[in-house]
Amino acid sequence: MHTDAVAWTADGTVRLLDQTRLPSETVFFDIDTIDGMVEAIQALRVRGAPLIGVAAAMGLAGAAKRGVDTGSIGREREAVGAWLQEACDILRQARPTAVNLGWAVGRMKTAAIAELARAPDEDVGSVLVDTLRQEAQRLWDEDAASCRAIGEAGAARFAAGSRILTHCNTGMLATGGIGTALGVIRVAHEQGKVQEVYACEARPLHQGSRLTAWELARLKIPATVIVDSAAATVMAQGRIDGVILGADRIAANGDVANKIGTHNLAIIAHAHRIPFYVAAPRSTFDLGAISGAAIPIEERSAMEVQTAAGVGVYNPAFDVTPADLITAIVTDAGVLEPPYENTIAEMFDGAVR
Amino acid sequence: MHTDAVAWTADGTVRLLDQTRLPSETVFFDIDTIDGMVEAIQALRVRGAPLIGVAAAMGLAGAAKRGVDTGSIGREREAVGAWLQEACDILRQARPTAVNLGWAVGRMKTAAIAELARAPDEDVGSVLVDTLRQEAQRLWDEDAASCRAIGEAGAARFAAGSRILTHCNTGMLATGGIGTALGVIRVAHEQGKVQEVYACEARPLHQGSRLTAWELARLKIPATVIVDSAAATVMAQGRIDGVILGADRIAANGDVANKIGTHNLAIIAHAHRIPFYVAAPRSTFDLGAISGAAIPIEERSAMEVQTAAGVGVYNPAFDVTPADLITAIVTDAGVLEPPYENTIAEMFDGAVR
Repeated sequence: MHTDAVAWTADGTVRLLDQTRLPSETVFFDIDTIDGMVEAIQALRVRGAPLIGVAAAMGLAGAAKRGVDTGSIGREREAVGAWLQEACDILRQARPTAVNLGWAVGRMKTAAIAELARAPDEDVGSVLVDTLRQEAQRLWDEDAASCRAIGEAGAARFAAGSRILTHCNTGMLATGGIGTALGVIRVAHEQGKVQEVYACEARPLHQGSRLTAWELARLKIPATVIVDSAAATVMAQGRIDGVILGADRIAANGDVANKIGTHNLAIIAHAHRIPFYVAAPRSTFDLGAISGAAIPIEERSAMEVQTAAGVGVYNPAFDVTPADLITAIVTDAGVLEPPYENTIAEMFDGAVR
Repeated sequence: MHTDAVAWTADGTVRLLDQTRLPSETVFFDIDTIDGMVEAIQALRVRGAPLIGVAAAMGLAGAAKRGVDTGSIGREREAVGAWLQEACDILRQARPTAVNLGWAVGRMKTAAIAELARAPDEDVGSVLVDTLRQEAQRLWDEDAASCRAIGEAGAARFAAGSRILTHCNTGMLATGGIGTALGVIRVAHEQGKVQEVYACEARPLHQGSRLTAWELARLKIPATVIVDSAAATVMAQGRIDGVILGADRIAANGDVANKIGTHNLAIIAHAHRIPFYVAAPRSTFDLGAISGAAIPIEERSAMEVQTAAGVGVYNPAFDVTPADLITAIVTDAGVLEPPYENTIAEMFDGAVR
């Protein structure tokens, strides 16, 4: 069965697995416009910080292909450039918290601008299409490789017989590969180290009990779902050897923005002296954010939290976990230890050289 | 509108507000058998530790009335005694964690046995009915008075402008009066001290977002619902001045069994140096439990936590919060401070003398 969260269609547009229908239905749908991609991102048909970046890149390429094929994007250099600019502006604003979206769109735009500058006037349309398609594929391939690298690095932190708690979804439904935190769990499972995975359901949208549970069942990894509020109970009972989860944005000081509930879990793990790991590729780091206070936190509709008439709802989709609650950050360039100001800076210094 | 959670019918049986239908529907139903009361308790049509005690007592009285009226309980002393014994045994096992149920049923039985011993043979049926009805009414009245005493004692702990976080439901839907923790909030609101109440939704059965929100809206107390996982966020944002919630059973050392998620909140409040209060009547204390480890924790159906096929569910309905995370326990006999081993023992010594 075809279950990639994202794929190319035969005609170069994008096919997504509609994650809002899981786990009861496995439904794919095709997107060939920027507006369609924005809708899919905002409605969470596609979600997960790395996957949003990959899907947006592929969606940009697919929309360019369709636009050039149909002639809705003009053939002139100026029209192509204007379309690229506007498409990138719209896409990067689809969701605020995950930094990978802006990062991926920026990389796509930079690549396209460079190639367009070299292209003869008569070829700008086809160069736009080819460049975006190649860069999107490169992004996807790199994200898959990142996931594998994170998985290998993180799995080394777990001993045989590990019982691991995770939150929200960070697997193949959240990335272009095997996942970040769930990729670590998957590699650790391949190494025979995983006794049990506890998956928090992740209110309000149940991305743990719907998506992570669905992935764990497919991978045949022993798994138990708990309500988010049962975290202290399973930790106090000695059922948890480590916590690992993903990130939507990591600040320069190591503060982590991630799915609402991450901060709860970090405090509770700390109180029980249980290691608390964050797993994310380098594209999730935002050195422009000095600390978590600089990260925009998306508030979603009150409709996601049903309640009685006459009361308000506060529904932040993410929270910020202070760096001092994080045991280590597992990246595609190795495992970072505190002090994160130093180790994060070193990681990016190395990459730049 | 009649909105008492429990009431007598004209013919001496019990009328309950079906809490599973709230907040969308306000539906009452009558119970005149022990089996009916057990079903109502197990299906959570009536819940909340103090209210379960009151409702079970009233249900016992109502079932006795109906049984004597219809002749299904024999007129002989032996038949009446056997019925009482069996009815009490069945009722007290309806749910395991809340101690108030066993306490209330035990008190009803003791009162009935004492009166039956004095009754002439020809009157045992009517004495059973009258005694149970009077004792149930006394229990209900006492619980209402307890709530008011808890409310007054607890409200003194809150200053003007307080923003208070609570969990699950502890109001008139959980007691025979204005509530325990929600009773404190109600009295503090009457005193003009409440700026905002944050109500956790309380997964998996949403007894916060369904029931507490419904009560707060009716009382016109400014209220905001959050998912349980947003607790650290609102505390870190400085939005919470104090946490107060109820209890299903309190051990002799001050450990508190309460709705799943209470332990999470206690740890998170402690990490933010926010006062964490528990409110409960003396009937919620179980001096037979040396610590929380001795309290049976009810696990409920996996069906309450929907997830993908192929994974397990662990669904404890309650957790145990260690006494050292609790700032004070507000009771109907005053506010207890640590060390709870001493203050709890003193409270019951005083009552016995």
